[in-house]
Amino acid sequence: MNTNILDELTVVADTKIVYFIMDGLSGLPMKEGGKTELQAARIPNLDNLAARSICGLIDPVMPGVTPGSGPAHLALFGYDPIEHNIGRGVLSALGVDFKLTSRDVAARLNFATADKNGTITDRRAGRISTEENERLCEVLRKGIRLSGGVEFFLQTESEHRALLVLRGDGLGGEVNDTDPQKEGLKPIAAEGRDAPSKKTAAAVSEFVSRVREILKDEKKANVILARGFAKHVPPKSMHERFKLNPLAVAVYPMYRGLARLVGMDVAEVAGDLKEQVKILKDNFARHDFFYFHVKKTDSYGEDGNFEAKVHIIEEVDAIMPEVLSLKPDVIVVTGDHSTPSKLKSHSWHPVPVLLWSEYCRQDEVTRFDEISCIRGGLGRMPSLHLMGVTLANARRLVKYGA
Amino acid sequence: MNTNILDELTVVADTKIVYFIMDGLSGLPMKEGGKTELQAARIPNLDNLAARSICGLIDPVMPGVTPGSGPAHLALFGYDPIEHNIGRGVLSALGVDFKLTSRDVAARLNFATADKNGTITDRRAGRISTEENERLCEVLRKGIRLSGGVEFFLQTESEHRALLVLRGDGLGGEVNDTDPQKEGLKPIAAEGRDAPSKKTAAAVSEFVSRVREILKDEKKANVILARGFAKHVPPKSMHERFKLNPLAVAVYPMYRGLARLVGMDVAEVAGDLKEQVKILKDNFARHDFFYFHVKKTDSYGEDGNFEAKVHIIEEVDAIMPEVLSLKPDVIVVTGDHSTPSKLKSHSWHPVPVLLWSEYCRQDEVTRFDEISCIRGGLGRMPSLHLMGVTLANARRLVKYGA
Repeated sequence: MNTNILDELTVVADTKIVYFIMDGLSGLPMKEGGKTELQAARIPNLDNLAARSICGLIDPVMPGVTPGSGPAHLALFGYDPIEHNIGRGVLSALGVDFKLTSRDVAARLNFATADKNGTITDRRAGRISTEENERLCEVLRKGIRLSGGVEFFLQTESEHRALLVLRGDGLGGEVNDTDPQKEGLKPIAAEGRDAPSKKTAAAVSEFVSRVREILKDEKKANVILARGFAKHVPPKSMHERFKLNPLAVAVYPMYRGLARLVGMDVAEVAGDLKEQVKILKDNFARHDFFYFHVKKTDSYGEDGNFEAKVHIIEEVDAIMPEVLSLKPDVIVVTGDHSTPSKLKSHSWHPVPVLLWSEYCRQDEVTRFDEISCIRGGLGRMPSLHLMGVTLANARRLVKYGA
Repeated sequence: MNTNILDELTVVADTKIVYFIMDGLSGLPMKEGGKTELQAARIPNLDNLAARSICGLIDPVMPGVTPGSGPAHLALFGYDPIEHNIGRGVLSALGVDFKLTSRDVAARLNFATADKNGTITDRRAGRISTEENERLCEVLRKGIRLSGGVEFFLQTESEHRALLVLRGDGLGGEVNDTDPQKEGLKPIAAEGRDAPSKKTAAAVSEFVSRVREILKDEKKANVILARGFAKHVPPKSMHERFKLNPLAVAVYPMYRGLARLVGMDVAEVAGDLKEQVKILKDNFARHDFFYFHVKKTDSYGEDGNFEAKVHIIEEVDAIMPEVLSLKPDVIVVTGDHSTPSKLKSHSWHPVPVLLWSEYCRQDEVTRFDEISCIRGGLGRMPSLHLMGVTLANARRLVKYGA
């Protein structure tokens, strides 16, 4: 479904929208017949809000597809997650809050171990520590200068993972992975599929060979493997598309980066939920769209910690009255995807959503959970449609056709 | 979603379909926790029919998008409202029941006031009366002959609004608006984006300058502004696509025009619901698809008159037994879009629908309203899909694939 017609329909209005996203919100019972994390949680404020709202279930990409954080969030922001398939390199850059420019090509690097013949014996260099990674990156930054007017940026992610950004004029992103994906093979030579990408591939080859020279005496991390080369092609901003002036209130780098990708301002915030709510309040007059991101629901799901996930959902419930006291014209509460504790990972299950506005057309749902929301008035729809419904409720869309 | 595969699956059958459309049917409570117009209405016949039917909610264009009457109706008739984006000029022509040909380019005109320098001082010429508009159109029709073998038709809509149709060989529709959209500016010269449209633009320029000469002594309406130039490209008819022989029983010009656009026959009918039902009965043997249109549900919604909208819905309910006494094989009751009295305008909210046939697979819904229909077996789907479901229930679609 092409939702780009929204762009031609948006108008500015004096209304405020809070988009409250709990990462990996929804889940599964640990045993057949049990309760999900949301069902187990005592969330009187969210239940009351659901009772006054229109509810439903949203599919981040399509039924059955488990999304990464990138596509899941882009869909919520109104960007088709298949059309805007953000490359891994760019996601890595977003994940460390690296400010990409349109002259950049990004890739995910692994430090790896090679034997004397150059054959990879460990694709993760024994999972070196993050501190070790930082030391190596520092050495490489000091030791390498690339030819051809290409700059590079090398930034530690964690353990053996790092980000490489090449910056220059006319660099293309169509470069193959140099990672052979298996031990016992040699790294693959970088090749470009077109003229701009050949220029990138030349810079990659130069970089790789300089790394090998500099790290030749390292025990573990003596080579690098690169994958997910991606040129940064920023999508139209939410301001250009929807005439919004959005602010992200998110702590984790990946989500701050995703917000920046669609042109949001990103608040300086570190700390707990209370700190995030304070930032929301302090900035409420200066913006009209607020993306509020809670990370721990996902983290506890990934850990398989059902009880901790229930507890964090209850903590979020406790701050809801303060969020609602700001009297937004539209409030949406949902997740970007499911992270069932039972699966210890993201999953494909649709995500419950509630939307309150004066015009929401309240349905019969009185509990905010995966099962109750099935009977909601929004039905089950792609996450991609949530932005249109939100803008409509904020009276920010004019009529389509006469 | 491409529904064009339906065209290849349709067959002729000896079945009759009534498509009963209440304009702007659905709504909102006036206050949080209240009832919608449909919920407030006493509609025992529609409730009984809903109890025997499959119900659901339909989105005219997509969730969040408020449709005009054109796209909302095209979707109900099985035409993708984004693919078939009918220009304003063509809609104006439909709205005054002007019979467009494929040699026509149509535009919406405003009579306007210009000062001595040609600067627009009132884009609506002080909202002159419809009678005054008719007098001016008559003067212009008599006074103007265009060169280059181009005919023109000028027809009053209401107040300052009129329809201009240019008819000729090889006229294109890619002409800019001459309306500057703001007072204090001069009209914009008409220009064509391609050779056929340049021919149209030349005719427009000639027309505009002749109007100025003829109306130069008028106090208010001394110039015209044109917008929404659109070449009439008729879509395939419902007969070509669905092998139907449809009849429209609609009183208002816009809906008669929309029906004609998709190739329906249009019954001569003026008057109230009872008159419409009589026309339906009189013609029931001669057609197999009947588009029955009720306008007042929308009109009262636009007026913000909740009670009157409730009352007209009850009046419609009262004629249902007579409609059902015709024993159609399929009856669909729905609206083209929502027009909540609370909003006094079209809105984005989905529309309840019921479909009865011997094969409908009755669900648990027993009330015909926006909330009860959430639990219906049709779920929530684009209006565009309603025609396929209707044709299927009328046993007019063969199997897709082997």
